[in-house]
Amino acid sequence: MKLALELAEKGRGAVAPNPMVGAVIVKDGRIIGSGYHEKFGEGHAEVNAFRSATEDVAGATIYVTLEPCSHYGKTPPCADKIIEKKIARVVVAALDPNPLVSGRGVKKIRDAGIEVVTGVLADESIRLNEVFMKYIVKKEPFVIMKVAMSLDGKIATRTGESKWITGESAREQVHRLRSALSGIMVGVQTVIADDPQLTARIPNGKNPVRIIVDSTLRIPLDANILKNQDLAKTIIGTTAKADREKAALLEQAGIELVTVPEKDGTTDLSALMKILGERGIDSILLEGGATLNYAALDAGIVDKVQIYIAPKLIGGSTSKTPVGGKGIDNLNEAFKVKGLTATLVGEDVLLEGYIAKDE
Amino acid sequence: MKLALELAEKGRGAVAPNPMVGAVIVKDGRIIGSGYHEKFGEGHAEVNAFRSATEDVAGATIYVTLEPCSHYGKTPPCADKIIEKKIARVVVAALDPNPLVSGRGVKKIRDAGIEVVTGVLADESIRLNEVFMKYIVKKEPFVIMKVAMSLDGKIATRTGESKWITGESAREQVHRLRSALSGIMVGVQTVIADDPQLTARIPNGKNPVRIIVDSTLRIPLDANILKNQDLAKTIIGTTAKADREKAALLEQAGIELVTVPEKDGTTDLSALMKILGERGIDSILLEGGATLNYAALDAGIVDKVQIYIAPKLIGGSTSKTPVGGKGIDNLNEAFKVKGLTATLVGEDVLLEGYIAKDE
Repeated sequence: MKLALELAEKGRGAVAPNPMVGAVIVKDGRIIGSGYHEKFGEGHAEVNAFRSATEDVAGATIYVTLEPCSHYGKTPPCADKIIEKKIARVVVAALDPNPLVSGRGVKKIRDAGIEVVTGVLADESIRLNEVFMKYIVKKEPFVIMKVAMSLDGKIATRTGESKWITGESAREQVHRLRSALSGIMVGVQTVIADDPQLTARIPNGKNPVRIIVDSTLRIPLDANILKNQDLAKTIIGTTAKADREKAALLEQAGIELVTVPEKDGTTDLSALMKILGERGIDSILLEGGATLNYAALDAGIVDKVQIYIAPKLIGGSTSKTPVGGKGIDNLNEAFKVKGLTATLVGEDVLLEGYIAKDE
Repeated sequence: MKLALELAEKGRGAVAPNPMVGAVIVKDGRIIGSGYHEKFGEGHAEVNAFRSATEDVAGATIYVTLEPCSHYGKTPPCADKIIEKKIARVVVAALDPNPLVSGRGVKKIRDAGIEVVTGVLADESIRLNEVFMKYIVKKEPFVIMKVAMSLDGKIATRTGESKWITGESAREQVHRLRSALSGIMVGVQTVIADDPQLTARIPNGKNPVRIIVDSTLRIPLDANILKNQDLAKTIIGTTAKADREKAALLEQAGIELVTVPEKDGTTDLSALMKILGERGIDSILLEGGATLNYAALDAGIVDKVQIYIAPKLIGGSTSKTPVGGKGIDNLNEAFKVKGLTATLVGEDVLLEGYIAKDE
């Protein structure tokens, strides 16, 4: 199953909005075939594994990282293929997260008299497909809040210098992540303060859609983020408070405006996520600043946090921190993070985990 | 040498102000003796290893984590003992940090015609004796700045709630550390806000001397930290600005006052460290708050940082962060931390490292 997960990973960036899936066929203790879902619209992992088999797969065990599909999509159902190939045993990591079909593939195979084991390295498979697992169920983007801060929790010096707190390896990793996700989101305050381009500056990088949260359209018309629409599209999430003339100017420049209701006097982020999800944006990298980060946590739209911590101390009672806004009153109201892991990235440390949800 | 380092560690808490040292004797590929410095004033590691030897040590190799001593202290020089025992080869991790004697032990042994190898796992041995390594050279305490914060760099909610951000395992580890060090230091603001006891609340815990930095003697006379002087002594570092009557009252209550010069209108921490070092305080756990932490970094007295990070997000543009004060202006002035490591402690993560010094 570990090998199957490694194979699945190879599909990253090429299979979305499909999940990454890997499959390994074992017979008499030998691997006789393996494959993964390589590209959206093309063969599923199971089919590719069968295709690669060096001998007859009848009587073999197939390890697959996600429940085999039971319905006709762009390709025929893999469950049928498994039955037809006379596989003796199927080992599945995670079930299909889609409540409409979850368990159906397993049932179909079991009904054909084939042994099925589920839940083997399920967490790893779910983590691998975290974006797919949320998007397929909720049709809302999976949101990763990314922060780069010092050991004492500062994202800039008191004078506002923030370039660069973390090292080259961390920054390169972030650009790779940008390229793997379908959207990147900042608040208008970050656009005004830093005037970023928000493109994925790596070789052959795919640019995510650039999303700005700007309830009153304060964005400067000459902002970098509005340029190069041929390279990367820009969407502004705004409210009815926005100036209509400015809105028209932006739309003439090819910028898409999404008007959502107000909430607490500002953009309703939950409503914005629903609309972005409908437009096919399955994943968003949230890159601050402090006010938007808190609003996003408060609205419950954040799924995962990635905190890069640089080995330095900045100090300053007025220096900016990663999450601002009003903040919680009591510790028992804190946003809890589960599955926290620590990894060294160059000279920095990356802490990452998932926001615990009450559902 | 690894075994010798593990043995050395066993002396922790019992040998100060001596260093922890371990020794292992190997002959014909077999360990024939081992020992460590068990208690201040008693046998050194080498002597204990010789004593434990199961056969004649002549011709053997001795692995020792710190350069054998060459001078008469409470015990005769170990270098002489090694020569007398006809050891064939000596492998040393770290040299003695004391510039007056560093290298002398090795030279004495070499002059006797015995092969000496140095530098084997030297970093590990230096780290093990980080307190000794500073104190023996500078006669100033080794200062560890300890912080407990959330993933977004907050040490309290906006309403000031800070009990408890980190989990039980992290807190227990801090109490063990308090017990292993000779001093614990806070600013008077922390005394006023939290009224802590600052004792090591673990079974058989030794209490460190409690040190308060209070330039104008604002401390409330009924503060917990002034009580139980029989359990733990309290020292207040203050300046000439302090009220004399209050000073007299505190001294009558058995509190020791140390008056140091002012620096930038507040207590000169470097001067305070020198005096505390003269009084035999070799190590201090600095437990904040934000203003004192920055002043300590700025004064260059901090040697090591320990940042416990809880898996939660607190937010709040006015919530307190671990290092306040003025803060640096430009990123290239940041206090750099080297040798950063990350360890899971219960549900929290501990990041620790050493402040890079320009010397």
